[in-house]
Amino acid sequence: MAGYSSNKTDIQKRLRRIEGQVRGLQNMVDDDRYCIDVLDQVAAATRALQAVAIALLDDHLEHCVADALASGGADAGEKVREASQAIARIVRS
Amino acid sequence: MAGYSSNKTDIQKRLRRIEGQVRGLQNMVDDDRYCIDVLDQVAAATRALQAVAIALLDDHLEHCVADALASGGADAGEKVREASQAIARIVRS
Amino acid sequence: MAGYSSNKTDIQKRLRRIEGQVRGLQNMVDDDRYCIDVLDQVAAATRALQAVAIALLDDHLEHCVADALASGGADAGEKVREASQAIARIVRS
Amino acid sequence: MAGYSSNKTDIQKRLRRIEGQVRGLQNMVDDDRYCIDVLDQVAAATRALQAVAIALLDDHLEHCVADALASGGADAGEKVREASQAIARIVRS
Repeated sequence: MAGYSSNKTDIQKRLRRIEGQVRGLQNMVDDDRYCIDVLDQVAAATRALQAVAIALLDDHLEHCVADALASGGADAGEKVREASQAIARIVRS
Repeated sequence: MAGYSSNKTDIQKRLRRIEGQVRGLQNMVDDDRYCIDVLDQVAAATRALQAVAIALLDDHLEHCVADALASGGADAGEKVREASQAIARIVRS
Repeated sequence: MAGYSSNKTDIQKRLRRIEGQVRGLQNMVDDDRYCIDVLDQVAAATRALQAVAIALLDDHLEHCVADALASGGADAGEKVREASQAIARIVRS
Repeated sequence: MAGYSSNKTDIQKRLRRIEGQVRGLQNMVDDDRYCIDVLDQVAAATRALQAVAIALLDDHLEHCVADALASGGADAGEKVREASQAIARIVRS
């Protein structure tokens, strides 16, 4: 089971809204809308995607990483390292 | 005319690809794919959106801002300030 | 004990190097160095600070959060939430 | 002359404050301060550096790029491209 299972509805709702923002961007470009207005919508979609990343990370730490650590299995350290590396990729993106 | 007029085909192609990435994310979530794999796709879509922002800014400076400055009109200073503020919003997003 | 205890020497070395970069920036500005060269050094110092943030987060997850979860204490959930919120602040900075 | 010449005092004041923040970080690490508190100070210093980048970019566009474009010299296009590339490096940092 994925860490975000209990928040699937919320995550999907956010992703559909972002899909709508990206389609809206295509319409703006079709209509030759002013660069700065297009840019501001790109920034809004970027922030919305980052919010999804933060929500997914939160769920992953709270469920997958927490469970691995609580069960004390051999893969607990690996789970933490994997999460750290994913966080690094998000911070740098 | 928008600053990105001559790059419209490229910008639209990038946006359609990002729309596809966001729809792909919805399928990953539907399929309960592993959090880290979903996160990496979110980071990839974020980077793709930032690349669109950079391309739009580039066109805007090269055309809209450059034209306003070359014509030496009263709005040249305003165009530069507007671009700076848009850059600030992109850097902070 | 802090999560970064065993990496203190490395963290301090990075911070001293960043302090040097920031002092170098002051010298560049004193010398009226070209804007783009100054900007590139600002970007380099920013990346170096983000690398420190990632190293600190990694240590924090590996030690403080892992210990709280392994001991199964009542504060384990709180530790995870606190880490998530810190990650959100780093991603948005 | 650099684009930030008329804002040199302000830029230097910001850089000295950031140098102080980075030295403060070294003291926090020396004192084994809690990871999350250190992380929040790293995020604050990162935001302060980004604000310097934005101020430098603003001055660069308003002076160096604007002057090159107003004079209509052969290097005007080159100045815009150079600025775009610097913006791209800042957005990605």
